[in-house]
Amino acid sequence: MVEYIYKCFGCGKEFNSKLIESEFHYLCPECGSSEKNQPLNGVLEIEYDYNNLKKELSRKQFLNYTPGKFWLFPELWPLNFARENHSEIVTGISDNKLERLALNSSSYLEFQFENCPIFILDETRNPTLSYKDRASIITAIKGVQLGVKEIAAASTGNAGSSLAGICARLGITSHIFVPIGIPDAKRVQIQSFGAKIYKVDGSYDNAFDLCLEVSNERKWYNRNTAFNPLTIEGKKSAAFDIFISCRGEIPDTIFVPVGDGVIISGIYKGFRELLALGWIERIPRLIGVQAQGSDALVRYLETGKFEFIPDDTVADSISAGAPRNLYMAADAVKVSGGKAITVSDEEIISAQKFIAKNYGILSEPSSAASLAGYIKLKNKNEINQKDKVLLLITGNGLKDTAPLEKWNQSPPALSYDEWLQKLITK
Amino acid sequence: MVEYIYKCFGCGKEFNSKLIESEFHYLCPECGSSEKNQPLNGVLEIEYDYNNLKKELSRKQFLNYTPGKFWLFPELWPLNFARENHSEIVTGISDNKLERLALNSSSYLEFQFENCPIFILDETRNPTLSYKDRASIITAIKGVQLGVKEIAAASTGNAGSSLAGICARLGITSHIFVPIGIPDAKRVQIQSFGAKIYKVDGSYDNAFDLCLEVSNERKWYNRNTAFNPLTIEGKKSAAFDIFISCRGEIPDTIFVPVGDGVIISGIYKGFRELLALGWIERIPRLIGVQAQGSDALVRYLETGKFEFIPDDTVADSISAGAPRNLYMAADAVKVSGGKAITVSDEEIISAQKFIAKNYGILSEPSSAASLAGYIKLKNKNEINQKDKVLLLITGNGLKDTAPLEKWNQSPPALSYDEWLQKLITK
Repeated sequence: MVEYIYKCFGCGKEFNSKLIESEFHYLCPECGSSEKNQPLNGVLEIEYDYNNLKKELSRKQFLNYTPGKFWLFPELWPLNFARENHSEIVTGISDNKLERLALNSSSYLEFQFENCPIFILDETRNPTLSYKDRASIITAIKGVQLGVKEIAAASTGNAGSSLAGICARLGITSHIFVPIGIPDAKRVQIQSFGAKIYKVDGSYDNAFDLCLEVSNERKWYNRNTAFNPLTIEGKKSAAFDIFISCRGEIPDTIFVPVGDGVIISGIYKGFRELLALGWIERIPRLIGVQAQGSDALVRYLETGKFEFIPDDTVADSISAGAPRNLYMAADAVKVSGGKAITVSDEEIISAQKFIAKNYGILSEPSSAASLAGYIKLKNKNEINQKDKVLLLITGNGLKDTAPLEKWNQSPPALSYDEWLQKLITK
Repeated sequence: MVEYIYKCFGCGKEFNSKLIESEFHYLCPECGSSEKNQPLNGVLEIEYDYNNLKKELSRKQFLNYTPGKFWLFPELWPLNFARENHSEIVTGISDNKLERLALNSSSYLEFQFENCPIFILDETRNPTLSYKDRASIITAIKGVQLGVKEIAAASTGNAGSSLAGICARLGITSHIFVPIGIPDAKRVQIQSFGAKIYKVDGSYDNAFDLCLEVSNERKWYNRNTAFNPLTIEGKKSAAFDIFISCRGEIPDTIFVPVGDGVIISGIYKGFRELLALGWIERIPRLIGVQAQGSDALVRYLETGKFEFIPDDTVADSISAGAPRNLYMAADAVKVSGGKAITVSDEEIISAQKFIAKNYGILSEPSSAASLAGYIKLKNKNEINQKDKVLLLITGNGLKDTAPLEKWNQSPPALSYDEWLQKLITK
């Protein structure tokens, strides 16, 4: 069993995981609170004994792992996977089940943008086609190891379709709370995977609060992002996959689309752990990219205050009026020397087109925000020519086809002879 | 440069690849013919000097490759990748570009069906989310190495979205001919990737013939399935990935959805090569599964005659009234000791549901035909309890959401308070 503690991001208090491991862990028992349409207080982080791990683990061996197979380094997860002992009797998860949870191992790709090299982390080929699988997998495994049979989550669509698909792979039941505006494809994923779906006549923020209330009452294990510290923990794995894929030559700057702020917090945490292990010398500069219609992090960093403004953007996956992990995300941006910026829906769609046509990757609007942010900073000369830049592409475009339909209207159908005449005599 | 010949499947005549390498190669120069709504005559296969390769290559080394990274064994492709010399100057394709073409490396998964182990080859996470990437990749690389700037293909949707996406990754132009009934998501993929799209007011068979006629006139390189022998060649790679993933313990029986018959021919060829190299002792029994409304292979194997019947099935990807590679597919089934069977649309949809809910894989209807076929033979006691069975899942369900919408209707949206009342007081 891996040794770890829970530490509150708000008050700093530490909790021994063993004392409370039989219960579900969410927010800090001292200062944690969840209020409607508000960022969470007292989000917990998981901390390992890095000085001890430094002696046990080797950078060289770590770099030889296959990206996406997170279970190969059990020491860095708050789970019960003994190394070289993945037997179902010990861990509750058979090797066959773990293999079903492997992330895209060819996710780190090099392209060019205006003659500069640019790297992409392509999360569009994960088990349910989004980054959210990273959080769902670790949370669902924890659930299985806690003996849970039912897990719930609120979602704009990706976290929910992810939890539904991962639970189907593990054989447990999921309950997904979604806003009325959920894209059809994500809804269809959730339902197809056999999850119970609860559509709220309201926003994602409403779905979040409702899911918490119902999970608490029904004793369902809750995967709401940030509320369950395992979600941050799962999302750190992208930093490890980047580190392995680039053979330790980590990027200088990473553009991360920001909604609830958990992906950016997770990536920051992953790099922080690599730094604590002495395997990297610095943390990449993290640029949080938000939609203009959902920019709470940008405003918070400017004013030091959170104000709830209902979200309004084409990029549904980063549409959150109240980013639940606002404070930790702000810290990740600041400590890494980064910043948070906004991009317009037009810039997002234009970037989505560019990525599809030039890189052959069909992304969601939210994912394309990372390229839009890069272009914005590049045009302002805030990117050094020599910087190694990575963009996070967090979800597949087929998960939200309505924005794609707008710039790809169905062409007219011509007869065989009409086409011949048009194409050959031209 | 790898040594190989073209050999006609129809008349058996062999052609030295070097003599004609500067031209495009399609059907047999002696007996080849393509007629409307008919299987092709004179489809070419590529043959290597297996006795020589046997001395050069090692089974042990081959089993250590990463599945999906086909370029690691350049000797088995009719392309110009010298081993350990992937420089763009030599091959026309940089290493960065090759990495963008990696297939899903975690595709070989073990599940259970009624307490029997069952294996799935999950092609839903390839670059454009279908098996067709295997053919598009090898054909497009060939095109690049021939100096081609434009490639055309006819497609029910997957081959076209695949070629469009792969060409976007390689920086060349694609022209895609599609039938009027193409699913929206596949059309949107094609257009998003920047391909030129030509929608024919007719069937896939019409699109196939039109694409040939126009490509010939316009001198576009043509990727029509089976017409271009590189498509069969590309599709053989799944046999190699299965061989590597199962550490040489290959399946006894493989269920393959059959439309044009190129996937089953390619898989057969891959195993035939492994046999020729002395690395396996037998070829798995190949079961071709067709939809009842598109069953030309089943009828051909029964009667020895081809008859064109317009296709009619929910499984658009295997919907082909005139399977272009009919004769080679029939041979693959016979020589492997397999058979061809039909399943109804109802059986297909029922299998699609089963796969999603129990295995967490959202598949297209055509893909689910493989499970439907397995269930059919199992119920007839034609599967030995000890047989190692593999199902090919060829495309992601999000590529065709209309059939999914039918069994996943949008649920009503309730207010926050209505849900609370319903879920908590219950």
